Amino acid sequence: MKTILIIADGAGDRPEKALKNRTPFQAAHTPNLNALATKGINGIMDVIAPGIKPGSDTGHLALFGYDPHDYYTGRGPFEAAGAGITLKKGDVAFRCNMGTVKNGVVADRRAGRKPTSEFVEALKQIKIETVHGVTPIVADGIAHRFALVLRGQDLSWRVTNSDPHDTGMPVQQVKPLEKTGGALRTAKACSEFMKKAEHILATHPSNKTRDPPANAVLIRGAGIATNMPAFETKYGLSTAAIAKGTLYEGVARMLGMEVITPKTATGDKNEDCMAFAKETKKALKRKDFVFLHIKGPDLAGHDGKPEEKVETIESIDEMIGELLDLDALIAFTCDHSTPCNLKGHSGDPVPIAIAGEGIRTDNVTHFDEIACAQGGLHRIRGSDLMPILLNILNLNEKYGA
Amino acid sequence: MKTILIIADGAGDRPEKALKNRTPFQAAHTPNLNALATKGINGIMDVIAPGIKPGSDTGHLALFGYDPHDYYTGRGPFEAAGAGITLKKGDVAFRCNMGTVKNGVVADRRAGRKPTSEFVEALKQIKIETVHGVTPIVADGIAHRFALVLRGQDLSWRVTNSDPHDTGMPVQQVKPLEKTGGALRTAKACSEFMKKAEHILATHPSNKTRDPPANAVLIRGAGIATNMPAFETKYGLSTAAIAKGTLYEGVARMLGMEVITPKTATGDKNEDCMAFAKETKKALKRKDFVFLHIKGPDLAGHDGKPEEKVETIESIDEMIGELLDLDALIAFTCDHSTPCNLKGHSGDPVPIAIAGEGIRTDNVTHFDEIACAQGGLHRIRGSDLMPILLNILNLNEKYGA
Repeated sequence: MKTILIIADGAGDRPEKALKNRTPFQAAHTPNLNALATKGINGIMDVIAPGIKPGSDTGHLALFGYDPHDYYTGRGPFEAAGAGITLKKGDVAFRCNMGTVKNGVVADRRAGRKPTSEFVEALKQIKIETVHGVTPIVADGIAHRFALVLRGQDLSWRVTNSDPHDTGMPVQQVKPLEKTGGALRTAKACSEFMKKAEHILATHPSNKTRDPPANAVLIRGAGIATNMPAFETKYGLSTAAIAKGTLYEGVARMLGMEVITPKTATGDKNEDCMAFAKETKKALKRKDFVFLHIKGPDLAGHDGKPEEKVETIESIDEMIGELLDLDALIAFTCDHSTPCNLKGHSGDPVPIAIAGEGIRTDNVTHFDEIACAQGGLHRIRGSDLMPILLNILNLNEKYGA
Repeated sequence: MKTILIIADGAGDRPEKALKNRTPFQAAHTPNLNALATKGINGIMDVIAPGIKPGSDTGHLALFGYDPHDYYTGRGPFEAAGAGITLKKGDVAFRCNMGTVKNGVVADRRAGRKPTSEFVEALKQIKIETVHGVTPIVADGIAHRFALVLRGQDLSWRVTNSDPHDTGMPVQQVKPLEKTGGALRTAKACSEFMKKAEHILATHPSNKTRDPPANAVLIRGAGIATNMPAFETKYGLSTAAIAKGTLYEGVARMLGMEVITPKTATGDKNEDCMAFAKETKKALKRKDFVFLHIKGPDLAGHDGKPEEKVETIESIDEMIGELLDLDALIAFTCDHSTPCNLKGHSGDPVPIAIAGEGIRTDNVTHFDEIACAQGGLHRIRGSDLMPILLNILNLNEKYGA
């Protein structure tokens, strides 16, 4: 039996006034998700632990069975992997923005949100000279985003951000957070990189006409690449990820998954979910385990738009209709809740349904946070998900004799 | 209040097609189990942890509150204790078969499954000479089975099996799995034991007529006897085990329980459950805590026979009828699931009912995997069972003041 793990990003929610005190999952018309719940076993899941608010990175790691306490230091490595950099153990990686500085303070943290590829290209000439044996690697991202990796011995992720996270503030110095040689070396290399980048950007021909100019590098999310075993090695399952979004693609790549992005994918609220279903069906012919990620609900949550979240869920429901009849084990859940009235992540547990051959079907007939809580899975943790799926697949080792 | 813990070995299951997509517990006629569920509190239990497939040994240890991660290295010590050897801390024990070798390869891993007592008796003369201070102890088991214990200082369970686990393969050398002196000494002692055993068996008069001959010793399941506190010491409860089966008797003996095996016990699918009830009632007059173990359902599961599993459950149900009216706390559950369509253990949670004075009765009225999941216990772990029972008995210590 093959497996599809579908993550509706940030789709979990709280009762929303605009939806007559229902959650988006409760308010949406979801005949296919309800069919999945009806034939499956359901529950709620604390992706990390009760009350803990997961990030998108730590949430996904936990769901795949990689304890973020062991493997996560910062978002940088996942963004860098998503931008196409193949990380080595010990690399320190950062998420970066091109920003606009005016009169010594940040005027726009995103330099007008416009693509900055030619600027990123220009930064590739930078060499670190004040710290021995450190090489910077940059890769372009979406719009104003790019990734920076420092490669070399004895580097550390324990450094501060240069991004002040607010306009009207000067770009910060990257400072060591501890007195180890690694943190000092990393901070020094960042400072040199930023100084040289500033010089290159100030004189870059494209900035003569660009408004606002891309004249500052805002660095954040330092993390060190840890020794993560590939998903296939860990579980013996060949895997593909059907995803659109640097972070999700990055997590998948870091775990050695083949990443497939549908050509028509937007990564936005108006996602072409049917294209994701199509790629999933195709990938399932070659792979044991397909991870299907849809970003839309999380964006509607961050925007505080319950009705839009309902629409993203209904698109996902249509997609589920394409997958329901496959001879596969299907798990449907979220990486975290993003309640619209919080406009951000929360630590509320997420609903989960698992359906397939051999499942102990329960009495749940509607997929939502409240109904699933009555299901036969009860309340599990993200770290339980892979053991539970492997058990249904009868791929788990016996502990004892 | 006295306590009876009843383990229906491997009785948990999945929906079985032959039972109209019901589990054996759902399909069986179980008026007494249902009465127990009705007057009790119910739930599902991950004997080790969600999705983890327990062995019979690790499962029982977990249920008795002995974390297998602390106390378990292999099945050998429990089989040896079940065969009547009183183990000392540091003893390394093995499960052994008498097998048949022809033309250098194993032709029958069980030497025709016939008793081999006289051969085991002959092995008692073996002395280990190449490793200083090691004494072998052997004890006869059921049919072709026997136990081997190596006693001496600095021994290790980190050695391979001599049993190739398949016919057509030569008997393997026992090899150290690590470079410690203990592993090397143990492997060397095993090799000497096997060589001498082979010689004794080759010339044993009973082999002149026996077909197939018992001419090889197949060793597996190495484990070291750990420092397990007696059940009575740990909980302050005098205990008896009513059980039939080397492993279950062995676990009970390792925990210092008095083991009682009904004379008519078969240890098979056709168990004389009523005799177990009778012994339980008798033991309960002398003891605080009786562990009652019935093997049948597990065997039906391993054989892939759902209808037979239903029958074993119905026999158990009759037995429950004998115990229901006792003034005792009764806990009924399984050590693991053995789904008939897997013909082996699984990591599916097992149903559990606890009934007795002071229980918070819930709305469950049928004992099975699906109904119990709706109960007041929710989803617990094996390691929670003894604390929950001690709490109902009000024998638990206050944590704090």
